[in-house]
Amino acid sequence: MNKRLILKYIGYMLVIEGIFMLPSVGIALYRKESASFFAFLLTIAVLEGVGFLFVSLNRKKDGNFYAKEGFCTVALSWIIMSLFGALPLYISGAIPSYVDCFFEIVSGFTTTGATILSDIEALPRSLLYWRSFTHWLGGMGVLVFILAIVPLSSENGNSLHILRAESPGPVVGKLVSRMKTTARILYAIYIMLTVIEIVLLLLGGIPLFDAVTISYGTVGTGGFAITNNGIASYDSYYLQGVITVFMILCGVNFNIFYLLLMREFKLAFKNLELRVYLGVILASTLLITWNTFGMYDSLRSAFHHSIFQVVSIITTTGFATVDFNLWPEFSKMILFILMFIGASAGSTGGGIKVSRCIIMYKSIKNEIKKLIHPRSVKLIRMDGKILSDDTMHSVSIYFGTYFAIFALSILVVSLDGFSFMTTVSSVAACLNNIGPGFDVVGPLGNFGSLSVLSKLVLSADMLIGRLEIFPMLLLFSPSLWIRSK
Amino acid sequence: MNKRLILKYIGYMLVIEGIFMLPSVGIALYRKESASFFAFLLTIAVLEGVGFLFVSLNRKKDGNFYAKEGFCTVALSWIIMSLFGALPLYISGAIPSYVDCFFEIVSGFTTTGATILSDIEALPRSLLYWRSFTHWLGGMGVLVFILAIVPLSSENGNSLHILRAESPGPVVGKLVSRMKTTARILYAIYIMLTVIEIVLLLLGGIPLFDAVTISYGTVGTGGFAITNNGIASYDSYYLQGVITVFMILCGVNFNIFYLLLMREFKLAFKNLELRVYLGVILASTLLITWNTFGMYDSLRSAFHHSIFQVVSIITTTGFATVDFNLWPEFSKMILFILMFIGASAGSTGGGIKVSRCIIMYKSIKNEIKKLIHPRSVKLIRMDGKILSDDTMHSVSIYFGTYFAIFALSILVVSLDGFSFMTTVSSVAACLNNIGPGFDVVGPLGNFGSLSVLSKLVLSADMLIGRLEIFPMLLLFSPSLWIRSK
Repeated sequence: MNKRLILKYIGYMLVIEGIFMLPSVGIALYRKESASFFAFLLTIAVLEGVGFLFVSLNRKKDGNFYAKEGFCTVALSWIIMSLFGALPLYISGAIPSYVDCFFEIVSGFTTTGATILSDIEALPRSLLYWRSFTHWLGGMGVLVFILAIVPLSSENGNSLHILRAESPGPVVGKLVSRMKTTARILYAIYIMLTVIEIVLLLLGGIPLFDAVTISYGTVGTGGFAITNNGIASYDSYYLQGVITVFMILCGVNFNIFYLLLMREFKLAFKNLELRVYLGVILASTLLITWNTFGMYDSLRSAFHHSIFQVVSIITTTGFATVDFNLWPEFSKMILFILMFIGASAGSTGGGIKVSRCIIMYKSIKNEIKKLIHPRSVKLIRMDGKILSDDTMHSVSIYFGTYFAIFALSILVVSLDGFSFMTTVSSVAACLNNIGPGFDVVGPLGNFGSLSVLSKLVLSADMLIGRLEIFPMLLLFSPSLWIRSK
Repeated sequence: MNKRLILKYIGYMLVIEGIFMLPSVGIALYRKESASFFAFLLTIAVLEGVGFLFVSLNRKKDGNFYAKEGFCTVALSWIIMSLFGALPLYISGAIPSYVDCFFEIVSGFTTTGATILSDIEALPRSLLYWRSFTHWLGGMGVLVFILAIVPLSSENGNSLHILRAESPGPVVGKLVSRMKTTARILYAIYIMLTVIEIVLLLLGGIPLFDAVTISYGTVGTGGFAITNNGIASYDSYYLQGVITVFMILCGVNFNIFYLLLMREFKLAFKNLELRVYLGVILASTLLITWNTFGMYDSLRSAFHHSIFQVVSIITTTGFATVDFNLWPEFSKMILFILMFIGASAGSTGGGIKVSRCIIMYKSIKNEIKKLIHPRSVKLIRMDGKILSDDTMHSVSIYFGTYFAIFALSILVVSLDGFSFMTTVSSVAACLNNIGPGFDVVGPLGNFGSLSVLSKLVLSADMLIGRLEIFPMLLLFSPSLWIRSK
C-alpha cells in the first residue's frame, strides 16, 4: 500500500475543504453570526494546518498507485471530510450532538438530504449555506475536483483509479484520454448547469440565497432545502417546473451532455440508459397521476406533483412538494421501488443505477438463453459495446452485496422500534442517497428521533451508497492491511 | 423441443395425482362427506382419463431430452397439477371461488401454507387431508416420485434434468450415479422421517388424523394446520418440541441424512451449509429470546417460542405457536430476514437457501480480493470442492432475478391498498414458500381479503419460489417456443 500518496491526496482534500468554507465565513460576517463565524474560522485553521502537513510530509516521489490505493483514498477522504465538515455545526453550537452534526454533513456530502433537524429555518444562514454547499461538492466529487486542478505527477493512472472509485456506475466513462481534461469537462458542465438553474430560479422571483442553495440541492441531487416546508414553500408551477427539469438533467449521465456539446446528437439520443431512464420516469408519472388523480383539483396539478415526486425520488434528490406519505399504497410502492433503481451512471444521483438494472436484465435474459441453448455463446452488447463477463459478474455481485448491507442495516435500525415502513424506508433513503423515506422519516418528518446507533449505521449507509459499496468494504477488508507495509 | 416426452411425463403425473387422491375418497366415505366424495371421484376420473391419454399417445421412442425439456416438464407439471388439484375443493362447494381453490392448492403443493380460509375447521376432513397431503407430495416433488417408480427408457439423462429443475438449491447433489436410485433413497428418507414424526406425535397423545396431517405439514415444510389456532392448539412442550426438531431436520440437505446412513459422520458434520444453518438458527433464537423475554412468564417459555418461530420461518414451514405479529420490531425484523435466507439446498424448504447465501458471501469476498490483488486468480472452494465460475455467476444472477420478481409482485399487490408491511410480507411469505407474513396476513390472519389479481400473482410467486425461478421464467421465454417444432 502506497500510504504516502494516499495521505498526500487526503492532505489536498483537507486544504480544499477549508477553502470551500470561505464563502460561509463571508456570510457569517455579513449576517453577523458570530458563533458560526468563529466556528468556521477555527475549522478552516485546523483543516489548512493538517492538510498542508499531510501534503508537505509526503512530497517525495509518488510511487505506484493501483486500484486499491484509489479506493482507499476515496473511502478515507470521504470519512475524514465528513468528520471535519461537521465541526462548524458542532462548534457553533447550532446542533448540540456531534453524531447529529456528522449525520447531517454525511447526508450533505453524499447528496442524500436526510436531516435530523425539525426546525431547519432556525439554523444560521452561514451554516445553511455550508450544508447546501456540501451537496454541490459531493455531487461531482471532491477528489474529481482535485484531479481537475492540482498538478500531480504520473497522474493519468492514479486519476483513473480515483475517478473509478468516486464516480458512480458500473463502468467509468472516460470522455477524453487525459483524465485531468475529463475531470475538467465534467466540472465545467456541472458549473454550467448550476449557473443556468440559479438564473432561471432568480427569474421566478425568489431571493438569491434561496436560488443558490436550491440549485446546489438540485444539481448535486441532494435535497437539502432551507425552509421547513421544502420545495412546497415555492408554490409556483414555474419554480417547481424548473427544479423538475434540472433534477431530470442531473440524473442523466454527464457523458450525454459531452456528446451534445460535441454535436453527437444521434449517439446521445440512442443511449439505452437515457431511454430507459426517461421511460421509467414517464411510466411512473402516468401511473401515479392516475392513482392520485382524486387527491388534486386538476389533472395538471396531479401530473405536476406526480412528476416532481417521481423525478425527485428516481434521481435520489429527495425534494418534495407534497406529503407523499398520504398517497395511496400503490403510488408509495412505485416511489419505494424507484428509490432502488436510482439515477443514471455517471450522473450525480445515487441508487443502484439504471444501467446496472439494464445489465442485470441482460444477464437474466442471457442466463435463460443459456438454459435453452447450453452450447451457444452469445455476446451481450449495450450501446454497441460488448459487455465483458467481468462487468456482468460485478454487477450481479453488486446486487447481492447491496441487499446484504440492506438486510444488516434494517436489522440494526429495527432496534429503535419504529414501524416496519419507517425502518425499511429510512435505510432505503440513506443507502440510495435520497433523503426522506416514509412514515416517521417521511417528507415532513426527520431522522432526529432515531437512536445514536441507527444514525451511525445510516451515516455508514449513506457513504456506502455514495461510493457504491466497494471502496468502503475494501477499507474494512483485513487482506488490505495485512500485506501492506 | 421434445413435446411428446414432456406430455408423457405430464400424463404420468396426472395418473399419479389421481391415485394420491384415493385416501381422501376413503376418508370421505368413512366420514360420510358426500359432496367431497363425489368431487374426488369426478376429479380422479378426469385425471386418469387425461393422464392415460397423454401417456398412450406418446408411447413412441422418447428422443432427445435436454435441460430445457426438463425445466419445461417440471414447470408445466406443477401448474397443471395445481389446476387439477384444486378441483375437489371447488366441485365439493367447500370453497366457492375457483381462484381461492387454486391459491390454496398451489400453497399446498409448493409447501407454502398460506391460506385464504378464515375457518379452517369448517372444511370436511377429506379435503383437509388432501390439503395437507399436497404439502407432503410437493415437499420432495411429484416428478422425483415418478422418477423413483416409473420405468423410463434412457432415463438417467432425463432424470438428471428433471431432478435439477424440481429439487431446490444451486447445485444438484447426486447421491449415487443412478438417478432412479437417488430418487428412491430420497423418498425412503422422506417416508422414514414422516413415519417417525407421526409415531412421536401419537405418543404425545393426539389423534391419528392430527398426527398425520401435522407430520405432512412438517416434513414437507408446508405449514397447513387443521385447526384455526394452528400449532398453538397443541399446547405442550413435548408436542411443539417434536415439531421443532422435525422442522429443523427437514430444513437440512437430505444428502446429509444419506451420509449419516452411510456412516460418514465426519463428512456430514463438516458440511458448511449445515453449520451455517444451525448457527443462524441458534443466533436468531438467542436474540429473539432476549428481545421477547418480558412477554413470557419464564425463560424456558421465551426460548421455546423463539426457537419454534425461528425454525418455522427459516425452514419456511410457517407454523406458529404464538402471534409473532405482537413481537417487538427487532424480533419481527429477524424473522423477516430469515424469510429470505430460507432452508438448506436439497431440503424440502424454500427461500433463497443457505448455500446460495454462502456462495454469494464467497463471491463478494472474492470480488474485494480481486480489487486488492487484480492479477491473482483464486479458486473458491466449498466443502473441499471448487465452485465453478458458472455456479457463482448463476447464484449472483439468481439474487438479481429474485429481487426483480419481488419488486414487480409488491407493486401489483400494493394495488389492494393494504399496509406496507402486509404487502411486502405477503410477497415474501409466498415467494419464499413460508405461509404467514405479518399484519393482515400474519399467523392469525389469512390471504382471503386480497384481490383476485393479488391471489394470482401470489400463486405465481409460490410456484416461482418452489421451482427456484428459472423453470417458470423459461416457460415464458419466447425463444423457447420460436425455435421449437
